[in-house]
Amino acid sequence: MQNFDYKTPTRLIFGKGVIVKLPEVMSAFGKKILLTYGGGSIKKIGLYDQVRELLKDFEIIELSGIQPNPKYDPSVLDGVRLCKEHKIDVILSVGGGSVLDCSKAIAAGACYDGDPWDLISYKVKAQAALPIVDILTLAATGSEYDAASVISRTETNDKIGYIDPVVYPHTSILDPTYTFTVSRKQTAAGIADAMNHVMEQYFTEDTTLLNDGFCESMFRSLMANGRKCIDNPEDYTARAEMMLACSYGCNGILALGNSPSGWPCHGIEHALSAYYDITHGEGLAIITPRWMRHILNDHTLPRFVKYGINVFGLDASLPEREIAEKAIDATYKFFESIGIPMHLREVGIDDSRLDEMAHHIAVNEGLDHAYAPLSEQDIKEILVASL
Amino acid sequence: MQNFDYKTPTRLIFGKGVIVKLPEVMSAFGKKILLTYGGGSIKKIGLYDQVRELLKDFEIIELSGIQPNPKYDPSVLDGVRLCKEHKIDVILSVGGGSVLDCSKAIAAGACYDGDPWDLISYKVKAQAALPIVDILTLAATGSEYDAASVISRTETNDKIGYIDPVVYPHTSILDPTYTFTVSRKQTAAGIADAMNHVMEQYFTEDTTLLNDGFCESMFRSLMANGRKCIDNPEDYTARAEMMLACSYGCNGILALGNSPSGWPCHGIEHALSAYYDITHGEGLAIITPRWMRHILNDHTLPRFVKYGINVFGLDASLPEREIAEKAIDATYKFFESIGIPMHLREVGIDDSRLDEMAHHIAVNEGLDHAYAPLSEQDIKEILVASL
Repeated sequence: MQNFDYKTPTRLIFGKGVIVKLPEVMSAFGKKILLTYGGGSIKKIGLYDQVRELLKDFEIIELSGIQPNPKYDPSVLDGVRLCKEHKIDVILSVGGGSVLDCSKAIAAGACYDGDPWDLISYKVKAQAALPIVDILTLAATGSEYDAASVISRTETNDKIGYIDPVVYPHTSILDPTYTFTVSRKQTAAGIADAMNHVMEQYFTEDTTLLNDGFCESMFRSLMANGRKCIDNPEDYTARAEMMLACSYGCNGILALGNSPSGWPCHGIEHALSAYYDITHGEGLAIITPRWMRHILNDHTLPRFVKYGINVFGLDASLPEREIAEKAIDATYKFFESIGIPMHLREVGIDDSRLDEMAHHIAVNEGLDHAYAPLSEQDIKEILVASL
Repeated sequence: MQNFDYKTPTRLIFGKGVIVKLPEVMSAFGKKILLTYGGGSIKKIGLYDQVRELLKDFEIIELSGIQPNPKYDPSVLDGVRLCKEHKIDVILSVGGGSVLDCSKAIAAGACYDGDPWDLISYKVKAQAALPIVDILTLAATGSEYDAASVISRTETNDKIGYIDPVVYPHTSILDPTYTFTVSRKQTAAGIADAMNHVMEQYFTEDTTLLNDGFCESMFRSLMANGRKCIDNPEDYTARAEMMLACSYGCNGILALGNSPSGWPCHGIEHALSAYYDITHGEGLAIITPRWMRHILNDHTLPRFVKYGINVFGLDASLPEREIAEKAIDATYKFFESIGIPMHLREVGIDDSRLDEMAHHIAVNEGLDHAYAPLSEQDIKEILVASL
C-alpha cells in the first residue's frame, strides 16, 4: 500500500427537491454570482427559471453556451473576464461535467493575474480560486466531487486534465430527477465514462481487498443501474444510484493507497476528442476493450481474472486466460448493449490522423509509465484496433 | 434511496513516516497546542518523544491519562479548563479513538461559555470548536474520519454519542506502524468495533447495490486483514488496510441514501460499557450475534441471506433460513476465532443489573425506531442471551 494525502471537502446535497437549499448555500459567499450553463437544456426542463426565481435577491451575470469538451477559447477566457469585470463572489454551474469543468478553470483563472492557460498547463500553481457551487444535470464525469477539470484548446489539439485542490466545488446539489430527460446516447456515454473511471483505478499495482471490492461494487452498480436508466429514463432509484456512483469516479476514494495507473484510456481518448470533438464517454467505451486486449499478458492476467469473476460472475474454475478473454468480451458487449457505437469510424474518425494522434499522445500523456507501459507503437495499435 | 446532506472535510495523511508533515500541519493554527493522550503507550513506542521533538518550536500544554470510554469528569472538564486558561489554538490528539473522542468534546467545550454537557447532551448546539489534529495509534473507532465522539458520565451511567460537524478533525495522521504494538486483545476489539460499524449501516432499509457492495467489501477486508494483524502484528500491509478500513466506519460514506438503522448494537453496548466500563469492541462482539438471531424474521431474512452469500461465501442454493442461520453462526465464530470473550460473564457482567440496563437503554436509545424495532423486553432478551 502506498502513502497518500487525501481530502475531499465538497458538500453533497442529494435527492429530490433539494434545490430549495440553494439560496441558503449561495448566501455564504456574497451577492454576485456568475451563472454558467450550456446550450439551453436547463431551460427546457424548467431548471433555469427555478434557479433565477430562487436567486432573485442575488445579482447574476450569465455565461452560457459552454460546449461539451469545454473550450479554453472562448468559454474559459470569457468567464474569467466576466468574473474580473463584475467582481464575482461565487460561480454557480448548472449543467453536466463540461459546464462544471469549465467553471473550475474560470474559478482559478479569476484569481490569477496572468494567462489562465499558465494554470491549466501547470506552468504556474494557482494560489486561490473563486468558490464554486454546482447543480448537476448529468451523471457521468464525477466533476461534482473532485478537483479535476478537463479543458480543450482547439488550435493546439490539447485536451488537458487540470487537477488542483483549490477548485473542489464547495457544494454540489444533486437531484436525480434532473437526469430524467438525459438522452439515451448521453446516458450511455455517462455510464461508459464512469465505468472507465473505475477501470483506470482498478487496473494497477498495489491494490487492496478493500479497494478492489469498492471498485467491483461500482462496476456492478453502474452496469445494473445504467441499464435500468436506459430502459426506463424516469426510474428514480436507478437514476439516483447511478448519480451517486458517478460522483465517486475521480476523487480517489476508490483507490487510496493504490499505485498510480497513469489513466491510459483517458490519455488516449483525450486526443480523440481534442482532434475530433467526439463524445468523451463514447471514445472511452471504444478504446477500453481494445486497450484491455492489448495489455493482457502474464503479468496483468490475475487482474483480469479477478475482474471477470467478481464483476461478471464468470466461472472461477475456467482456465485463467479464458476468464480474462471472456471478461474483455463482456466489457465490449455491455457497452454495445447500451447502444454505444463501438468503432471509431462510427463516430467520424478514420485512419488519416492516427499516426499524428499516437505521436501526440506518446509525447504528452506519459503512458510509458502507465500500469502497462504504452509506447507510441502500442498506442497506434490500440487506435488501429479501435477503427 | 433517501435524500442526504453529506460532507467529510478531514484531510487524511496516511502511511509510514508521514509524521514528518506534523510541523507544517500544526503551523496553520498558531503556537499554542493542547497535547492530549492516554496512559503512556505513546511513550513506550517513542511517539511522544518524536512529537515533542518535531514540535519544539510550539508551546505545548498536556492533558494525559485519558481513559478508554473517556470520561466527562475529569477528562473533558480538565481539557476545557486548560484550553480556556492557556488560550489554546489547536488540539493535538495522540492515541486511539478514546483520546480523540475526548479531544472532540474538549474542542467544542472550549468554545462554549456554559457547561460542556449542554453540548454533549444536545441541549445546546455548538457554534464552533477548536481545530483538532490527531495522530492515530489504534485502528478501530473511525473517530479520525468522522464527527462523532462518545463520552461517558459515570455518576448517571450515561454514555452518549455526541455528533456535530464542528468537531471533524482537521487532519488525521495515520501511520500503520504505530499499531504494530497494539495488543492482541485490543486489535481484536478494534476489528469487532469496525465490523459492527458496518453492520449498523448494512442491516437497514433502502440500501443500494452500491452501498451493499461497499459494506460487504469492508466486512471481507476487515476479517481477512484483521486475522493477519492478529497472527502477525507487524504485517504492514494488513495493518495499513485495516487502518484505512476502520476510518470509513462512521462517517456515513458506506450508506449514503440508506434509511437510518438506529445503530441498535451500539445503543445496547453503550449501556454495558457505561455500567461496567468494559472494552467497547468486546461488548459489541458479544451483543451482535445475539441481536442478529433475535431480529431474524421473514422481513429481515433477505438481508441476512445476502450477508451470508456475499460476505461468507455461503452456497446460494441452500434454503434461505439456513443461509441466514449459518451467517449468524459464522459471525459468532469469527469473533471467537480472534480471541474475543463471547459471553458477558467473561467480561465481568452478571445478571444482577440486566433489568436496570434494559430499562435505561429502552428509555434513552430510541431503539423502538430501529431497523428491527426493539422494545425493553426485546433488549432484555438480547442481554440474557448474551450472558
